Amino acid sequence: MARLALGIDLGGTNARAALVDGDTGRIVAARKSPLASREPQAAVAAVAAAAREAAAAAGVEPGALGSAGVGVAGQCLGASGVVANAPNLGWRDVPFGAMLERALGLPARVANDLSAATWGELRFGAARGSSEVLVVFVGSGVGAGLVVRGRLVEGASGVAGEIGHVRVPPPRGGAPRRCGCGQMGCLEAWAGGMNLSARVREDLQAGAVTAVREVVGGDLARVSPGAVEQAFAQGDAYARGLWEEIGELLGTAAANAVTLLNPERLILGGGVLMGCPGLAAAVRRHLDAAVSPSAAVGLTVAPAALGDDAGLVGAALLER
Amino acid sequence: MARLALGIDLGGTNARAALVDGDTGRIVAARKSPLASREPQAAVAAVAAAAREAAAAAGVEPGALGSAGVGVAGQCLGASGVVANAPNLGWRDVPFGAMLERALGLPARVANDLSAATWGELRFGAARGSSEVLVVFVGSGVGAGLVVRGRLVEGASGVAGEIGHVRVPPPRGGAPRRCGCGQMGCLEAWAGGMNLSARVREDLQAGAVTAVREVVGGDLARVSPGAVEQAFAQGDAYARGLWEEIGELLGTAAANAVTLLNPERLILGGGVLMGCPGLAAAVRRHLDAAVSPSAAVGLTVAPAALGDDAGLVGAALLER
Repeated sequence: MARLALGIDLGGTNARAALVDGDTGRIVAARKSPLASREPQAAVAAVAAAAREAAAAAGVEPGALGSAGVGVAGQCLGASGVVANAPNLGWRDVPFGAMLERALGLPARVANDLSAATWGELRFGAARGSSEVLVVFVGSGVGAGLVVRGRLVEGASGVAGEIGHVRVPPPRGGAPRRCGCGQMGCLEAWAGGMNLSARVREDLQAGAVTAVREVVGGDLARVSPGAVEQAFAQGDAYARGLWEEIGELLGTAAANAVTLLNPERLILGGGVLMGCPGLAAAVRRHLDAAVSPSAAVGLTVAPAALGDDAGLVGAALLER
Repeated sequence: MARLALGIDLGGTNARAALVDGDTGRIVAARKSPLASREPQAAVAAVAAAAREAAAAAGVEPGALGSAGVGVAGQCLGASGVVANAPNLGWRDVPFGAMLERALGLPARVANDLSAATWGELRFGAARGSSEVLVVFVGSGVGAGLVVRGRLVEGASGVAGEIGHVRVPPPRGGAPRRCGCGQMGCLEAWAGGMNLSARVREDLQAGAVTAVREVVGGDLARVSPGAVEQAFAQGDAYARGLWEEIGELLGTAAANAVTLLNPERLILGGGVLMGCPGLAAAVRRHLDAAVSPSAAVGLTVAPAALGDDAGLVGAALLER
């Protein structure tokens, strides 16, 4: 029988649990459990419930699994299992790993969600077979995962990979935007899906002429990167200009990270990049133009392969 | 008796060799030998001569040493000992490690010169005791060394740390400058000592009003970062503006690297930064303003401690 591992993805509203075949990376069973509240104890209960249900669906006893891995959107202090800061959950210094170990009766490894997703892509996705890897995710936020010598780089305090918070010049001389982190000039303030949508809404309210307005039927609440992509596909000039601008910011930031780290593989992932091929193409163009020639030699760029499953698969298979 | 190791620094005009006490990092003896030509065989001969003389000065037989390490300004393919590209020497794919092993009768490890200097700072300098380190060097060029989990990061093809070739916005909307690497928009095109001096010369030729002109006695050939620093110390407005501009470029690039890598220690080194305290202060100011708050927690910033000796000490003690 296949060696099964338990992978967990803890978001701000749900806990997802999956049993993953350690030999193939295949998800054998997965369950989702809503968080009754964001209190750590409630999150542990939701995780344990999802894990029990997934195990039952796969026909195994939870206790028969060797260990569990959890990806959390936040700053995780590596092997200690402590979540130092998770803004989505409102957590500060929560000993989540230890709480989970008690609840599940299993050793538990806690990691940043993008580190877990990076590990998934490394083990069974687009980075398979590489030991020097950079993964850039563009979803509602912007972040990265780093692999050096085949191991995750988590940094001195668990916040390595914060490429969303590197400082970038405002595109075309525009005024800097404040990021969700409170700082000015972060990449994520322009290129994260949430901020991108807010900006398009502002432009629409200011009277911008663009097919995005028709795509969302005049309903600003429906504005999204996907709506911009639809307008882009129709040849809309506003959307084209926006993708060029955001593509330059993301492509240059990714290129600079490649120039610094000299990875063998750069993986581009996250819901916004995967769902917006027009934007992804602009990112690739600016990446190719900006990466240093010596780091470009031998670099392979590829889209992420596991999508939303990367975090579950990676969490399940995290190294101790 | 102290355990002695042989460290070598190979530049474009000289080979330096030193015997380093492996327990203290102290240089017991050092010798320099000029390169008769830049041919690999001539470089090997110069290195061997310097090594023999240093060993003689320390009263040991070269063959009694355990191994040798060499820092070369160029792209080094890690354990293979191959120098893939060294523009200063005009080398491409030179099996320098193997050539050196034959000439010295010792195992030899070849590394990029800034990686070697980073290793020196890690073992016996300003990064001692840290396992997650970023060293930024500003001399005639701009480069970095990275340490993750206590080991050098050399990258997939030996060019990790090329922070001089990340793309930066031209300061104050000026036109981009071409870098020595052939690309436009590199940090080094503005902040490397050689390019910085060239630009100040251009400004002087264009009639810039600045005390730099008096500092160099009207002789453009004497323009250097040190001359700008002298003018800065006299309160010169041009020098103040230039240090602010270059300080912002370097400080922001260093901050972005810290945000990405989350090191425990950032070391600032290289002849230009060590020789120009006014510039170094501007770098620190912009670094503090631009680094992400989560990566700033627990970060220590310090000047390099070993100066020119870092490369020799680090090369001697490089891990196999």
